[in-house]
Amino acid sequence: MKTRAAIAWGPNQPLEIEEIDLEGPKDGEVLVRIVTTSLCHTDMFTLSGEDPEGLFPCILGHEGCGIVEEVGKGVTSVKPGDHVIPLYVPEDPNCPYIQSGKTNLCQTIRATQGAGLMPDGTSRFSYKGKQILHYMGTSTFSEYTVLPEISVAKISKDAPLSKASVMGCAVPTGIGAVRNTAKVEAGATVAVFGLGAVGMAVIQGAVLRGASRIIGVDVNPNKFPLAKSLGATECVNPKDFSQPIHEVLIEMTNGGLDYTFEAVGNVGLMRSALEACHKGWGECTVIGVAGAGQEISTRPFQLVTGRVWRGTAFGGVLGRSQLPGMVDEWLRGDFDVDPYITHHMHHDQINTAFDLLQRGESIRSVIHFQPDETMTVNSLPGQIIPR
Amino acid sequence: MKTRAAIAWGPNQPLEIEEIDLEGPKDGEVLVRIVTTSLCHTDMFTLSGEDPEGLFPCILGHEGCGIVEEVGKGVTSVKPGDHVIPLYVPEDPNCPYIQSGKTNLCQTIRATQGAGLMPDGTSRFSYKGKQILHYMGTSTFSEYTVLPEISVAKISKDAPLSKASVMGCAVPTGIGAVRNTAKVEAGATVAVFGLGAVGMAVIQGAVLRGASRIIGVDVNPNKFPLAKSLGATECVNPKDFSQPIHEVLIEMTNGGLDYTFEAVGNVGLMRSALEACHKGWGECTVIGVAGAGQEISTRPFQLVTGRVWRGTAFGGVLGRSQLPGMVDEWLRGDFDVDPYITHHMHHDQINTAFDLLQRGESIRSVIHFQPDETMTVNSLPGQIIPR
Repeated sequence: MKTRAAIAWGPNQPLEIEEIDLEGPKDGEVLVRIVTTSLCHTDMFTLSGEDPEGLFPCILGHEGCGIVEEVGKGVTSVKPGDHVIPLYVPEDPNCPYIQSGKTNLCQTIRATQGAGLMPDGTSRFSYKGKQILHYMGTSTFSEYTVLPEISVAKISKDAPLSKASVMGCAVPTGIGAVRNTAKVEAGATVAVFGLGAVGMAVIQGAVLRGASRIIGVDVNPNKFPLAKSLGATECVNPKDFSQPIHEVLIEMTNGGLDYTFEAVGNVGLMRSALEACHKGWGECTVIGVAGAGQEISTRPFQLVTGRVWRGTAFGGVLGRSQLPGMVDEWLRGDFDVDPYITHHMHHDQINTAFDLLQRGESIRSVIHFQPDETMTVNSLPGQIIPR
Repeated sequence: MKTRAAIAWGPNQPLEIEEIDLEGPKDGEVLVRIVTTSLCHTDMFTLSGEDPEGLFPCILGHEGCGIVEEVGKGVTSVKPGDHVIPLYVPEDPNCPYIQSGKTNLCQTIRATQGAGLMPDGTSRFSYKGKQILHYMGTSTFSEYTVLPEISVAKISKDAPLSKASVMGCAVPTGIGAVRNTAKVEAGATVAVFGLGAVGMAVIQGAVLRGASRIIGVDVNPNKFPLAKSLGATECVNPKDFSQPIHEVLIEMTNGGLDYTFEAVGNVGLMRSALEACHKGWGECTVIGVAGAGQEISTRPFQLVTGRVWRGTAFGGVLGRSQLPGMVDEWLRGDFDVDPYITHHMHHDQINTAFDLLQRGESIRSVIHFQPDETMTVNSLPGQIIPR
């Protein structure tokens, strides 16, 4: 079949919208029509060429939602018409990592997914006979995409697909980091470095856990009003201080934070986030993805005196067994995803979404494949970019 | 009063045994007669001049045991005749850190202890009118020493003082790191880097927790028989492999260890220990103390994929409330301290103890202040160095 897709031909090139060829789902695979997708820094990071794992040409996109159109042989957990969120961290109940109960990092299709291929070692995408690679096992910048069954989470049909895409990465990553990885407890103090969508979701997660202080840290003060509306008790701009930011935070909190989160991917900030932790018990959770070959460092004294350095991927969320429940939490009103959504646009305007994110002007741009279906909805949060 | 003490006049100089002046205990202080002390790498580290916190002249020694001789005004928890272990990590029930229930790092006398002084900002030691500093708040290389009340743990009189000194640092540090800090669970796999006394105690701790595999790592294979006798299931020498040791361990364990411990103080090994951890859940606990200005580093990907980097001091043990119970465990036979004790000698032979430790020939040398009292005991473990 044919599908419209935004192709990344190589690093640092604008995406090109083309009609490309898509093979149908093979055994254990699912064909999904992506209704909306949103743009995450990780897509931009790969497109920049900084990502050591980046491969081209490919179809980027890993934060989306859609409807199952067709299933391959042996697929039993979803059927055509089901609403789903593609999972870049799959969940295979037969994977020993999943069975351990200690991690969400399913390994079943890791090797092929990392190589931009489906589990059988081939791609479903091609253009004029030339293979185009998948990306993060999801490739949500194509209107139709094929995924392994273990890479889709079936969600409630009550979730509006005009905005559910943000449940594909940013929101579960931030809230999950707080609840599953750091296990922040009521009354704790929290700081989050980086007020992009993931950082904002960390704030929401900290609110859900009853944190007593939630400090947002960003060099762009335009992010502060939204951070505060989501529940940040204070926001600080490192540029306003001559001291290193970890010292500022230690002073503000009389000894340091109980929990810090790095949601940027900057190794210097990962160190600051660790060193801003309270002696004896403070824990730093790294969420951001750093550039190729970059390393974090600190004095081991920071650890020996009780600080803990950990990290998280997809917020430690088990995609198939836990993400649907998080969608239900959203629908119940436990948290809101509207504040993340700053812009809407048609799929063929996708390069504008990259520009907005690059300039720090958007939190999330939602990209609509069928604007007549989803962009005409009343009370859509954010701004519609005219075509 | 007068006391015999081994004075460290400066970095890299042999200790000198002298009769020095000791002021009696002031308010809230305790005079202790040290019966035996043992030599730990940390004493050697400070003497080497590598320790950024090292101050001279001082009386080293922080692993000892003794008898309360006299108490200052206001002391209520110990009385003359009590057997005690000096604590370089004190435990003040009024310290907010202790009250937090999250750490053993009591801060009450941190500043003065770090400066080599008693809590009132003065030293009790002097020689010919010149002030000699305390060390780690303990200075067990003096036959008589003065400590704050919060820096002594009262232990059972059943504990033989001919060997209880090792309960002052090595044993609780290693066992505590396993139980309190890493919280190793039954069936887990463990590797320990460095088979000195602390590494040996990590092995004992892992046995107590029911670990399924316990791998000792050291470049000195002479340590392997003792490690195995304590419960190591395997020992590996990094020099026997061309690959990096973390890769060797990952292969041996089909993916990495559940828990690793660094008990050397080498920043390269701290990295190896982290990277030898199992993806998704492996945790590395740093116990060793690194040299001045040295830093640990790794790729943040190691954390984002689920490994955890933490550290511990004194094994997370609360000295006054938990160490006496650990002494009882030893007396009950839950673990044995005899294997640690390789040598005995008189106080005036203390430089020999440094030489033995430096050459990797001893695990613990026990230094006796009154050999007639404690070195004549039958079935003393280890070898007596003739005077």
